[in-house]
Amino acid sequence: MEFAEHQNGFTLSRNGAVLLRHDKNFPMIFIGKGHETMDMYRGNFSIEDYVTERRPLELTDIEKDGAAWVCSFGCEIQARIVLAGDNAEIFFESGNPGINRFWLRVPAEQNETCYGCGEQMSYFNLRGRHFPLWTSEPGVGRDKTTYVTWRSDVENKAGGDYYHTNYPQPTFVSSRRYYLDADCTAYADFDFRNDDFHELQFWAVPARIRIEAADTMVSLLEKLTAFFGRQPELPEWVHDGAILGVQGGTDRAFRLVDRSVRNGILVSGVWCQDWAGKRETSFGRRLQWDWHWNEKMYPGLPEKIREYREKGIRFLVYNNPFLVNDGDLYREAKAKGYFATAEDGGDYLVDFGEFYCGVIDLTNPDAYEWYKQCIIREIIDFGAEGWMADFGEYLPTDMKLHSGISPMLEHNRWPALWAKCNYDAMEAAGTVGKVFFFMRAGATGSQRWCPLLWAGDQSVDFSRHDGLGTTVTAALSAGMSGCGLSHSDIGGYTSLFDNTRTKELFLRWAEMAVFTPVMRTHEGNRPDTNFQFYDDGETMEQFADMTRIHVLLKPYIKDLVAENSRIGLPAQRPLFLHYEDEPDAWTIQTEYLFGRDLLVAPVLEAGREDWRVWLPGDDWVFLWTGGQFGKGSHRVPAKIGRAPVFFRAASPYRDLFLTVKNQYGY
Amino acid sequence: MEFAEHQNGFTLSRNGAVLLRHDKNFPMIFIGKGHETMDMYRGNFSIEDYVTERRPLELTDIEKDGAAWVCSFGCEIQARIVLAGDNAEIFFESGNPGINRFWLRVPAEQNETCYGCGEQMSYFNLRGRHFPLWTSEPGVGRDKTTYVTWRSDVENKAGGDYYHTNYPQPTFVSSRRYYLDADCTAYADFDFRNDDFHELQFWAVPARIRIEAADTMVSLLEKLTAFFGRQPELPEWVHDGAILGVQGGTDRAFRLVDRSVRNGILVSGVWCQDWAGKRETSFGRRLQWDWHWNEKMYPGLPEKIREYREKGIRFLVYNNPFLVNDGDLYREAKAKGYFATAEDGGDYLVDFGEFYCGVIDLTNPDAYEWYKQCIIREIIDFGAEGWMADFGEYLPTDMKLHSGISPMLEHNRWPALWAKCNYDAMEAAGTVGKVFFFMRAGATGSQRWCPLLWAGDQSVDFSRHDGLGTTVTAALSAGMSGCGLSHSDIGGYTSLFDNTRTKELFLRWAEMAVFTPVMRTHEGNRPDTNFQFYDDGETMEQFADMTRIHVLLKPYIKDLVAENSRIGLPAQRPLFLHYEDEPDAWTIQTEYLFGRDLLVAPVLEAGREDWRVWLPGDDWVFLWTGGQFGKGSHRVPAKIGRAPVFFRAASPYRDLFLTVKNQYGY
Repeated sequence: MEFAEHQNGFTLSRNGAVLLRHDKNFPMIFIGKGHETMDMYRGNFSIEDYVTERRPLELTDIEKDGAAWVCSFGCEIQARIVLAGDNAEIFFESGNPGINRFWLRVPAEQNETCYGCGEQMSYFNLRGRHFPLWTSEPGVGRDKTTYVTWRSDVENKAGGDYYHTNYPQPTFVSSRRYYLDADCTAYADFDFRNDDFHELQFWAVPARIRIEAADTMVSLLEKLTAFFGRQPELPEWVHDGAILGVQGGTDRAFRLVDRSVRNGILVSGVWCQDWAGKRETSFGRRLQWDWHWNEKMYPGLPEKIREYREKGIRFLVYNNPFLVNDGDLYREAKAKGYFATAEDGGDYLVDFGEFYCGVIDLTNPDAYEWYKQCIIREIIDFGAEGWMADFGEYLPTDMKLHSGISPMLEHNRWPALWAKCNYDAMEAAGTVGKVFFFMRAGATGSQRWCPLLWAGDQSVDFSRHDGLGTTVTAALSAGMSGCGLSHSDIGGYTSLFDNTRTKELFLRWAEMAVFTPVMRTHEGNRPDTNFQFYDDGETMEQFADMTRIHVLLKPYIKDLVAENSRIGLPAQRPLFLHYEDEPDAWTIQTEYLFGRDLLVAPVLEAGREDWRVWLPGDDWVFLWTGGQFGKGSHRVPAKIGRAPVFFRAASPYRDLFLTVKNQYGY
Repeated sequence: MEFAEHQNGFTLSRNGAVLLRHDKNFPMIFIGKGHETMDMYRGNFSIEDYVTERRPLELTDIEKDGAAWVCSFGCEIQARIVLAGDNAEIFFESGNPGINRFWLRVPAEQNETCYGCGEQMSYFNLRGRHFPLWTSEPGVGRDKTTYVTWRSDVENKAGGDYYHTNYPQPTFVSSRRYYLDADCTAYADFDFRNDDFHELQFWAVPARIRIEAADTMVSLLEKLTAFFGRQPELPEWVHDGAILGVQGGTDRAFRLVDRSVRNGILVSGVWCQDWAGKRETSFGRRLQWDWHWNEKMYPGLPEKIREYREKGIRFLVYNNPFLVNDGDLYREAKAKGYFATAEDGGDYLVDFGEFYCGVIDLTNPDAYEWYKQCIIREIIDFGAEGWMADFGEYLPTDMKLHSGISPMLEHNRWPALWAKCNYDAMEAAGTVGKVFFFMRAGATGSQRWCPLLWAGDQSVDFSRHDGLGTTVTAALSAGMSGCGLSHSDIGGYTSLFDNTRTKELFLRWAEMAVFTPVMRTHEGNRPDTNFQFYDDGETMEQFADMTRIHVLLKPYIKDLVAENSRIGLPAQRPLFLHYEDEPDAWTIQTEYLFGRDLLVAPVLEAGREDWRVWLPGDDWVFLWTGGQFGKGSHRVPAKIGRAPVFFRAASPYRDLFLTVKNQYGY
């Protein structure tokens, strides 16, 4: 990185490429004032901003201070620029406490592409749109032109839009081979709509901006993950089959496992989200948010856990950072004063849809420690070896927190704090790499604390903005944000307004999940009216085959997981990571490389018997026939149960892939 | 008005009430820069603004210059304040050509109410919302929670919202007994959401702001209309019955008139919107936009016009400022170069929904004169005594106009220019007060040039934001903007997505129309699938009664129309105009005074047999029974055909109203 002062300003560049710049005609910083209106309804936020002032800053002085350059913008903002090799950190200090809006302009090029901003569900390449960054429900439908979205908006304010995500992060990666990260948990909005600059908005003066560059995208990701920290490896047992999401009490859950095993399905785990009990709501059956074993619903569970563990089938549960106000843990936390409160110190219950919960105040070290111990005691020591650590997006902005920090600043940090609490429990119990948890919510920090993402609550369909395809976008963008392990509910989750899961959707989803780090089913929010894998023998048989292929690939998948841990290369990779020279590789979001050697082009539409794929320049072998393909666009068969997948002819895993072909090809 | 300078700024006040103010803590002006994105699809605009700068101005100098105070805000803005009795005019000059955003803050009080902004369809009291002011299609549904709105948005970008209107105007009236008018045709947005100020946004520095105050609302309206000019009186014959909107050629149109007359309907006019011909589109049958007699469709029309005129039935037609590119007038205008062009001087055709039209360049004096002569020749001299002068909202913002003025500034002025062209034709033909035209589009200037508004294209339903009730809001807000004569399509117009007009809706609409200046039917956009007054004998009979009541009231209505011409008091009046002391009178938008002595509370819901009305403090007589009522809320019968109407016991028209009661009461 080089810093150069000139007549009207300065540039920060690397090998001649300008990464940051200020001059009279290109002000780097705008500051201003705004009043926001925030309204939360069950995790969906209605946010309006009234900006009363906004103005560009003028550079008034540059001073060298040791290794740093100190750029003064009047007495309003001081930017301290520290260079170290390929990275630059800019520390901001504000001399005007009235400032609560801050815009940073970053030079852009017209054909530049950008990625990241956490986990984005609709658009992998961020260019041409802006992305408000505020963790929330992702929306049901997420597309104002669809009926499901409209109904969700009208009935639950829940339709959402392309940018809504459980995991936003103020970090992006540019095709210009740099990443930019902001140390700022305030509401932000990254705007990639302009030809010659990106404009990053923050509702606070960010403490620090970091720009780090590299020569290749692979090395850039290595640096990015070195900075954020890398995900721990998953327990090896997760690769031994699918995790079955079943529920309904001891009898029903284990009976379904037995039936699955009898039908040849390889089962690595049984996940009972309702281990703590159930309650009925109009959205469907919901869980009892009181995160300990419900003995009435799951009699004899400890024995069952031991019994099935011996057969190689682990037990998984569910928790989240909220406690329902008629539960045991709520009573305990309430007595200890561990809940965040209303601004006046009174009780604050969050509406989760016909039931009400307290928010464990994770900024209170005692509350944090207590909840961590709850996780150890009730989950890990109980014998569960995995759990969905749900939510993290709902911190209301009008609470009082123990730390005294405004919830407007804690809201976007909460998912990481929640991840850390679960990680710390795992670590304190000495079980890192043996047990694991998975989250949909995320934030800066999730990289080191959350072993596995899941792509959230897709609708049970193929829809462009809320269906199967969004799990690919999610995995790719999370990967570019440093979270390289992702998976999804096979068959999707949300079934509303007569939108129900078909058998075809389940099978298409499952065949793709074979080529993700973890296979896991979910019965969805309305199990009775949606297709389930156990609904017919044919599906059980097909699903059994898929679990067998997944397990066959274990050596390869295990290596990918290890590589993600070691150097931060995600398991599911955008094509450009290994094919930087190919312009098309930078914009495709419907295909991915599963590791270096498999190219996966999932079927994302109903009623298809073939599928069009685009292959980058390499020698490719169609996994199911051994047919050879080169660079370009090809139409290939899309037999149910066999996702369009190619392996690199030169792969060191060639024999493994040929085994798959020989056993499961057609 | 008094101007007072003080330490940090100044105030403009009247009898101690501060109407305008500037000081350090309350900057009067903010200026800035923005880049807008405008996208028009068939009169529906998608508008986005990217404000890059906005800052409050500091007052740097006040100088007295003769009768004016000159306030300087740095070298950016000079405000020259000229007082004259109860009004103040502030002329702005900008020293910075880069400024294209301007915000004016006007002091507000918490319980203040505001009205006007042209013709608003959803909200009469503007307080608590902001109102973008940009003439456009008003939207179909206008309520994002309704199915019709959603479908309209998805299929035609046409759903609209509460603030969309054909007639926006940068003028409002405050309950603090003043009006404020801005001389600025740029895009504007008047924001009444703040407790202690209104913020008026303009996409240009306004040339002038005018504030005029009065002691009462009646005298305020008199002053406002003196300033804008007042509407001419309507021809007397319009009060002799209903104008029947029929179509389909000579035979069908006049056969329907004959049937109506036979059934006792009093007919003042027959309005054939398709006199120039028809074309088929998926929206329904549309007109041939070539504004002269279509001899093929209307054979023998001149004779029919003469024949029916002798029976007291006048003929009315339709025009608008666009010409379809396969028409005769288009060819003539094209040859003369009278169309506005693309920015490069090439042809510019506007998409009106499966057909394409040129825009007569009304800023070209030759084109204006030619089109005026067309109106005289093809309409007035032809024998028509009235016409719907439709549209005016569609001026695209990327055209080149003869005047050289940006269409961004002409767009909001276009409806007034179009009204003036029609008015000038009427005047040049010596027919003011003998013939008339009616418009839905409006702008500052419509007051003096447009004899009658109609409330636009309501959906054929009772819906809150696009149904029957919006015609009341429309009339009241237009009245407070200086246009005191309004009417509507009886039964509504727009029928889409299986939303069709019922008999009940038609009758409820008609019974209200009795108590408006003009009764006129419309078959709607899909005549065949919607209820029509001629569909059954019972309706003809009921409608006949209603026309008779309307004609019985002619002496009263004629006086109202004259009063509007004379002193600017609208025919349909908000309750507060005559009951200023009653707080409730300031917020009711579902009732109106029809003149000083009738209170009309139209039934705005389906399936009602009674209706709740609120009466201000006076002695009221229920028109249909003679029952006496005083101030307060009452439940009254709501018999079909007899809108809930009361007359003042002390009215000088008491005998007339009693005649109505005696002949049509129950």
